[in-house]
Amino acid sequence: MAQLEVSDFAQAVIDRMGECRDERFKQVMTALVKHAHAFMREVDLTPEEWMAGIQFLTATGQKCDERRQEFILLSDTLGISMLTVALAQARGAKGLDAHPGEMPTEATVQGPFFWPGAPKLDLGADIGEGYGEPTLYHGRVTDTSGQPLAGCELDVWSGDEGGLYDMQKGDSMSLRAQFQTDQDGNYRFWSIKPTFYPVPGDGPVGAMLDKMGRHLNRPGHMHMMLNAPGHEKLVTHIFVKDSPYLDSDAVFGVRNSLVVDFPKHGPGKAPDGRAMSKPYYTAKYDFRLVPSAG
Amino acid sequence: MAQLEVSDFAQAVIDRMGECRDERFKQVMTALVKHAHAFMREVDLTPEEWMAGIQFLTATGQKCDERRQEFILLSDTLGISMLTVALAQARGAKGLDAHPGEMPTEATVQGPFFWPGAPKLDLGADIGEGYGEPTLYHGRVTDTSGQPLAGCELDVWSGDEGGLYDMQKGDSMSLRAQFQTDQDGNYRFWSIKPTFYPVPGDGPVGAMLDKMGRHLNRPGHMHMMLNAPGHEKLVTHIFVKDSPYLDSDAVFGVRNSLVVDFPKHGPGKAPDGRAMSKPYYTAKYDFRLVPSAG
Repeated sequence: MAQLEVSDFAQAVIDRMGECRDERFKQVMTALVKHAHAFMREVDLTPEEWMAGIQFLTATGQKCDERRQEFILLSDTLGISMLTVALAQARGAKGLDAHPGEMPTEATVQGPFFWPGAPKLDLGADIGEGYGEPTLYHGRVTDTSGQPLAGCELDVWSGDEGGLYDMQKGDSMSLRAQFQTDQDGNYRFWSIKPTFYPVPGDGPVGAMLDKMGRHLNRPGHMHMMLNAPGHEKLVTHIFVKDSPYLDSDAVFGVRNSLVVDFPKHGPGKAPDGRAMSKPYYTAKYDFRLVPSAG
Repeated sequence: MAQLEVSDFAQAVIDRMGECRDERFKQVMTALVKHAHAFMREVDLTPEEWMAGIQFLTATGQKCDERRQEFILLSDTLGISMLTVALAQARGAKGLDAHPGEMPTEATVQGPFFWPGAPKLDLGADIGEGYGEPTLYHGRVTDTSGQPLAGCELDVWSGDEGGLYDMQKGDSMSLRAQFQTDQDGNYRFWSIKPTFYPVPGDGPVGAMLDKMGRHLNRPGHMHMMLNAPGHEKLVTHIFVKDSPYLDSDAVFGVRNSLVVDFPKHGPGKAPDGRAMSKPYYTAKYDFRLVPSAG
């Protein structure tokens, strides 16, 4: 029997898939094995380093529970999540030739803090009461040809004025809600101006980032998820233009088109008619959704 | 700010390590990120596939406990463990020019069933009593120039006649022991002729192998770990020459030089003087250890 040498093992693993019936799975596993082995050969990985890797992956899996997903955090901080988002957006853009109009709004990472089933509130509701600096979020949702999308579901969530999410504090839901656009595709709600914050650093991924010499911070952002019938779901953020860490987001999620001015206003009547007795911010953003494929 | 495109994310992650003070860690992480991103781009991984990967890794971590290491099983079945062994052996061979003589005995995977602290027994002891087909293991341990190594510690372990290890059965220790070579470097002990067996298939890795269209089996083998003062530790197996699956070991661990004849003998006096009332096998293997580096 031919003896496998260092450069042969990857192909030997791939050859073992002769009876794999899922062509796509076979393609993905082939590339995965090829790159994993090439990585090992390239750095001439030692048994001690291999064991450190085994222990890191095990600890990462064991850190996960109902409210903590350390593998997503790993993926986020190594740019893997954002690359997945960017690949999906690039695939979507290829299908757009049939749809004249502008490019759809850019997507970014969902992150680990989405919590399905947030309260369904009327447009204009304030979900930031009792937290941070009040901000009116408003704008319009259209398709890529500019047609308004009525009844588009808009899920929004953010951390508090210290950058902590309800899930992290072990609280019930706060600073999150679901809205629906009106007949003209408009939305508006009040929340807070989000602040920068660190990703959770008390697990294996935090130790890895520390060893990489990296900070843990994300620039301030409001999460938005849009679902309109007949259109692709959009998961994105609105980033605060003057936030620190815009140029070094720990999860590489910033897209230039998502960075938004948050002008500050003195007390008085806000654009939605609300009488404000203290200063507030506004953030205007219009979304463009792409029609569903097929 | 320049916008990151699909092909830019890997370098952006790597550039974030400007303050990493561990040059080797930086080198390993750079290659890891480069290959992980190249893999993703090559297969144009979808968000659904990414999520399947997150869930697989999480389940693999959560399957691990004191007696089960599912990430090592993953590494084993993707050829990663054996590549680590082969890389270490190749590095060791580079240092051998100063040591005239024969090549050292080939290493193979340790596997998940080593249990430190096995009973220390006298040469010639039988650890297979009550299990399977009796086999006399014997041979000599030398260095690569042929000098016998006295007092070399020899850890041996195997599954039972059904291929199950004590750990898998939840039993106390069985079919494992530690011996020491005598003044002339010789060893001998009785155990059983090992049979082929499947790696554990009830976890995420089993599901992966099933989807890859692969069987779970390893050919019959006796685990051996050798420790001699002033020499590199050797972790290896002796494989049974007539075993099924020698050409398709689920963990890619077979080395030609480790495949050994197990001749069968009728009842009578065995080579070590033991009177056998039933048929038995013998397996002779001489080990060569490489001097420690430095």
